[in-house]
Amino acid sequence: MAKIPYKTYLSEEQLPQQWYNLRADMKTQPAPMISPANFQPLKPEDLHPIFAEELCRQEFDATTRFIDIPGPVYDYYRTYRPSPLVRAYNLEKALDTPARIYFKFEGNNTSGSHKLNSAAPQAYFAKQQGLQGLTTETGAGQWGTAMAMSCAHFGLDLKVFMVKTSSEQKPYRKVVMQTYGADVTASPSNTTQVGRSILERYPNTGGSLGCAISEAIEAAVTNPGYRYVLGSMLNHVLLHQSVIGLEAKAAMDQLGEYPDIVIGCAGGGSNMGGLMSTYMADRLSGKANPYFIAIEPASCPSMTRGRYAYDFGDTGHTTPLVKMYTLGSDFIPSPNHAGGLRFHGMSPILSQLYLDGYLDEARSAEQTSVFEAATLFARVETILPAPESAHAIRAAIDEAIKCRESGQTKVILFSLSGTGYFDLTAYSSYLTHTMTDYIPTDEDLQKGFATLPQVPEGK
Amino acid sequence: MAKIPYKTYLSEEQLPQQWYNLRADMKTQPAPMISPANFQPLKPEDLHPIFAEELCRQEFDATTRFIDIPGPVYDYYRTYRPSPLVRAYNLEKALDTPARIYFKFEGNNTSGSHKLNSAAPQAYFAKQQGLQGLTTETGAGQWGTAMAMSCAHFGLDLKVFMVKTSSEQKPYRKVVMQTYGADVTASPSNTTQVGRSILERYPNTGGSLGCAISEAIEAAVTNPGYRYVLGSMLNHVLLHQSVIGLEAKAAMDQLGEYPDIVIGCAGGGSNMGGLMSTYMADRLSGKANPYFIAIEPASCPSMTRGRYAYDFGDTGHTTPLVKMYTLGSDFIPSPNHAGGLRFHGMSPILSQLYLDGYLDEARSAEQTSVFEAATLFARVETILPAPESAHAIRAAIDEAIKCRESGQTKVILFSLSGTGYFDLTAYSSYLTHTMTDYIPTDEDLQKGFATLPQVPEGK
Repeated sequence: MAKIPYKTYLSEEQLPQQWYNLRADMKTQPAPMISPANFQPLKPEDLHPIFAEELCRQEFDATTRFIDIPGPVYDYYRTYRPSPLVRAYNLEKALDTPARIYFKFEGNNTSGSHKLNSAAPQAYFAKQQGLQGLTTETGAGQWGTAMAMSCAHFGLDLKVFMVKTSSEQKPYRKVVMQTYGADVTASPSNTTQVGRSILERYPNTGGSLGCAISEAIEAAVTNPGYRYVLGSMLNHVLLHQSVIGLEAKAAMDQLGEYPDIVIGCAGGGSNMGGLMSTYMADRLSGKANPYFIAIEPASCPSMTRGRYAYDFGDTGHTTPLVKMYTLGSDFIPSPNHAGGLRFHGMSPILSQLYLDGYLDEARSAEQTSVFEAATLFARVETILPAPESAHAIRAAIDEAIKCRESGQTKVILFSLSGTGYFDLTAYSSYLTHTMTDYIPTDEDLQKGFATLPQVPEGK
Repeated sequence: MAKIPYKTYLSEEQLPQQWYNLRADMKTQPAPMISPANFQPLKPEDLHPIFAEELCRQEFDATTRFIDIPGPVYDYYRTYRPSPLVRAYNLEKALDTPARIYFKFEGNNTSGSHKLNSAAPQAYFAKQQGLQGLTTETGAGQWGTAMAMSCAHFGLDLKVFMVKTSSEQKPYRKVVMQTYGADVTASPSNTTQVGRSILERYPNTGGSLGCAISEAIEAAVTNPGYRYVLGSMLNHVLLHQSVIGLEAKAAMDQLGEYPDIVIGCAGGGSNMGGLMSTYMADRLSGKANPYFIAIEPASCPSMTRGRYAYDFGDTGHTTPLVKMYTLGSDFIPSPNHAGGLRFHGMSPILSQLYLDGYLDEARSAEQTSVFEAATLFARVETILPAPESAHAIRAAIDEAIKCRESGQTKVILFSLSGTGYFDLTAYSSYLTHTMTDYIPTDEDLQKGFATLPQVPEGK
């Protein structure tokens, strides 16, 4: 019997009682959110019409290193956390690599991904504030499901705008959200002003996270008692997702292991930001020197081919301006199957760390190569991965193969952020060789960059 | 914080190293399998053309109390087991019941159910024998997925005959099996003689497990190097599934809990047989007196309205005769959404225990009432249950409500055998109020009974 178990589960008593706020240890703070009207930095209260107040507070808190997880959220976490840290023995064997590969598996809950880690506190804080309901968007459907589950638990109404392409690729995701009581609309829709205007300009669009965000924000600010929730990119979301990294490090420590390489897929950045949080703290303090890799789809390459600039978070230009790696808020990515990674921008925290060289590497992968990795992984490790998560598998496999070639015994840790049970259309197109790769041309990217807002020098 | 955790995970070292063979402790052995030709009891070697030899040996072994789990199967179990025992705090609260409700959750693997527990050893023993491939049937798709995963792991080909109704209700299940390398055919099909003959008689049939079994057996015996595998009903399947009960008891013991009531859904009986195994041992030895409830769909009521008689296991009458509760092998149940429970017969072990009064109660439920329970459970306990498993939830809820009414603090243990991620068509029909209940009339049942084979008196 192998000395290190396949799965390491922390006990419920070891579940972190506080989130870790990486900003408290960053050398350079992410640039402040600014108003598109006067380019002045925003204050928490400026966001009160959009987000629950406690979330606004967290969004601007760059100094408190640890923040308590409220009791009811902690109890909710206990229904599905701690999540397992898995030693990928069978993948190591299949690759004949001397590397030791670990993955933190976040798919063992009905939302099918790590998204529930932020959905639960967002619903809780809204309920605490006495709100009636929430609005949000969903791409792959995992965030929408996580919010539906959390709203069912904490007793809130939920309106979900689901990216049209995803809602067509994943009809059953809608039923899951409805089972938990959510109201689901395909986006762009004619239920909002911004939706109608997007449909006028692009009548045949499959939508994007950027469009759906605009619609959800409009629905929140025009309905009394409602606020909006976002599943990625923002600082408070990364704060909640730190629970992934805290658990991963506790479990790795228990095994006496420390990763040489930390890998996550990155769409808005919440999964990568969550997994790397505690290890990045070690890197920032000089305690250790793990190598960080974020991997994104070649079809939506915000870090690898985007610009670091102030931009809107949505297509309808209803959000404040955020400084980040971006493809331009008008960039609508081709219909890659990893719906959760089809977002034009990137978390300001990840963007700043990448700019400063702490997040070592961003790379991109084409979807056929991602599904090749996904299929191999499924067959040997038994778990059917989400297309988003399979990007991280692709990078982990490539790093493990490098170890085989160099003979180096590296420790690789990646985040298996979710399962692919609702992505079978994509698997089917891979299996039947009808999947194609989409890579935007430089011209496509220029069109996106042309829509970046003009912000005065020095901002 | 509650004293008893939400989830109790045994460590991998606590994973049982042996299966428990309940027959070794039964007061009356299940009646022997007999030949439909001469009504003589069969010997293990009579089944060699159909099943791998080690499985035939296990099928007839009524005396060895504990049987070692082979190393490679144990290692495979370790990729997804031990499975959690969950305290359903939120369900208790929603029902305002003094009962303490526990469930053993078998859905945390890609097959989505407990089926993998028997699929893995069945593939392993076939590989050990040097076979090239296996054939099987699948209803809900969970058994087919489990076999696809196991055959991918142990290196065997797999042909799956999928009940046509299920294959239409669950198109994506097929893709999952294909992702793991299986070849999938809707049943009845024109690829087998028995399939063609069933199609001639019932051209519009949605199929049944009974039909699919006939096709799979024919494909096994007519292809050199192939054998057939069955996912339920048989003694060796219940043997493998004892791992559920062994783990459940070890975890409950660790918490200092003993169930007053043990509940499982029953289609062929493998899930109920697995969960109850160790507790039934206590009952048989007089050590304790838990109350056992098996619950089945009202549309396919083999225990509650069937006959205890010798019958074929399949519609095409290609199997030996097995004594069990049965609706007749020609009984094709109406298209209830719990595809895994649509089988005309019941495990001979369960049948005998029910006949002898050790399995205390069989009850049936209509599907709308089952989905009402499923939806409540999903919303409060976060997990989306399979329709099959939701039968057990229905019974657990009803027992917990009785406790509320009587004020009794009973301990209820049920098996949550799987997840409903591929059953969204069913959830959708429940949510849109288009789900209907099917209850066979006495006349329907008479038609099924009329096809029972004529077996000489005294058998």
